[in-house]
Amino acid sequence: MSNNFNDNFDLKIIKPLNKLQRSINKNVMIRLKNDIEYRGKMTNVDAYMNVILNDAEEYADGTLSANYGKVVIRGNNVLFINIKPDILM
Amino acid sequence: MSNNFNDNFDLKIIKPLNKLQRSINKNVMIRLKNDIEYRGKMTNVDAYMNVILNDAEEYADGTLSANYGKVVIRGNNVLFINIKPDILM
Amino acid sequence: MSNNFNDNFDLKIIKPLNKLQRSINKNVMIRLKNDIEYRGKMTNVDAYMNVILNDAEEYADGTLSANYGKVVIRGNNVLFINIKPDILM
Amino acid sequence: MSNNFNDNFDLKIIKPLNKLQRSINKNVMIRLKNDIEYRGKMTNVDAYMNVILNDAEEYADGTLSANYGKVVIRGNNVLFINIKPDILM
Amino acid sequence: MSNNFNDNFDLKIIKPLNKLQRSINKNVMIRLKNDIEYRGKMTNVDAYMNVILNDAEEYADGTLSANYGKVVIRGNNVLFINIKPDILM
Amino acid sequence: MSNNFNDNFDLKIIKPLNKLQRSINKNVMIRLKNDIEYRGKMTNVDAYMNVILNDAEEYADGTLSANYGKVVIRGNNVLFINIKPDILM
Amino acid sequence: MSNNFNDNFDLKIIKPLNKLQRSINKNVMIRLKNDIEYRGKMTNVDAYMNVILNDAEEYADGTLSANYGKVVIRGNNVLFINIKPDILM
Repeated sequence: MSNNFNDNFDLKIIKPLNKLQRSINKNVMIRLKNDIEYRGKMTNVDAYMNVILNDAEEYADGTLSANYGKVVIRGNNVLFINIKPDILM
Repeated sequence: MSNNFNDNFDLKIIKPLNKLQRSINKNVMIRLKNDIEYRGKMTNVDAYMNVILNDAEEYADGTLSANYGKVVIRGNNVLFINIKPDILM
Repeated sequence: MSNNFNDNFDLKIIKPLNKLQRSINKNVMIRLKNDIEYRGKMTNVDAYMNVILNDAEEYADGTLSANYGKVVIRGNNVLFINIKPDILM
Repeated sequence: MSNNFNDNFDLKIIKPLNKLQRSINKNVMIRLKNDIEYRGKMTNVDAYMNVILNDAEEYADGTLSANYGKVVIRGNNVLFINIKPDILM
Repeated sequence: MSNNFNDNFDLKIIKPLNKLQRSINKNVMIRLKNDIEYRGKMTNVDAYMNVILNDAEEYADGTLSANYGKVVIRGNNVLFINIKPDILM
Repeated sequence: MSNNFNDNFDLKIIKPLNKLQRSINKNVMIRLKNDIEYRGKMTNVDAYMNVILNDAEEYADGTLSANYGKVVIRGNNVLFINIKPDILM
Repeated sequence: MSNNFNDNFDLKIIKPLNKLQRSINKNVMIRLKNDIEYRGKMTNVDAYMNVILNDAEEYADGTLSANYGKVVIRGNNVLFINIKPDILM
């Protein structure tokens, strides 16, 4: 009746995403599949890597190309999320 | 018998999308994966980011290319949704 | 035993698609991901945006390129559906 | 205990596909995402738009490029299915 | 308590795939999305169109480009499967 | 209460993948969608065609381009797996 | 009532991913579908191959192109993960 195997596995599945949850309100750089980068404060993230970014800056080829207020990025476009250390960004 | 772990996780999953729900009837700019942008009033949105946009304007390369009345955008094409502040658009 | 949270969420998920259902038998313009447009009367639509279009006209680069009778468009190709007002098309 | 909401919604989901089911043994033209077209008698179709086509003809750029006997087309490649009227094809 | 509607629909869903199952040990030509073709004896197939092909021949632009013994093709790459009549291939 | 139909179908679904399981510790050649090939001993494979390859060699255009020790290939990139006969590779 | 078949199959499904779990805190090289490589210590990985990489280095065409602290890579972009032996990297 107990099902330790599946419990453990479910626990493992969400670990990287749990780590992401703990980085809420940190500054991040998000690179999308189209190579555009977005920088800002990650105020929200879910298990699909849907992210809400505040004070979002858009960079194309390393150059600032746009400023947005609040942006909701659809997770399936995300290549990676770089979590910035607290001291500088 | 209680399952606090999963309950919490489900709650977290929909948080960015819940935020989107609270932006209903706000002006938004939606960029699609093909780089075309749509601006208008978001009268409806769901968990896949399917969006209904009223008074939709289409912009290609920053230039207004078409006016539509009511447009239903299929969520899987969305790159991001930029929620506009209430004062101006 | 009640589960108001999930009930509410499920309700929200299908809202833009419910709106689509209410537009059955209206004239629509459907743009696909390959930029081809189809115009006609939407006699049927489902939650994946699979659509049946009657008297379907195909437009490429704004020019009428083909006339079809009844067309069943697979939803995953849809970029957006533009619901036309009743008066003209 | 009754669940009218979901029952109704499930019913709606499969409506365009039900229509397809009723077109079995009709002549169809199927355009795939790669712009190749297949014409023949649709002897079978399922909810993913997997189709069995008999006496299948392949057209590239409007020109007949191959004749196949029986072809099973994988649904995820389908752009649309054009159901031909009974009188001519 | 009975649920004839769903039972019937499930039955319909797998019909083209059931037909494929009946073609096991027949000669087939499989075209993939990348336009490469594989010919051989289909010794196994499942609902995702994962296929095991024996004595597999690879054709690029209609020219034999490689001979493989046993090949397991991942179903999501399949464009269509052409079932060859028994007499010749 | 019995459900022979679904039991049989489930059995059929995993058959090609079961065959793959029986090829564990055989030499294989795996072609990915990007046309790069990996050769080595397949020490592990699952139902998504996620594969662990030992003594992996990478071939681009038929030329050895890299040697890796242990490689875990994500299944959704796989075009096909060619199972090598035991005698030579 | 027992269901040994499915139990065994589920066990098999997660085997390559279980192996990945055992490589946590090892040095890895991750190649993405866009051919960019990331090297670092894999401090976390889940069943979708979402990975957390510490001291991440980015290589384009074999040349170091960027240094990141902590990077969360979305699993669906992963081509393969090369697990480095403990002695050198």
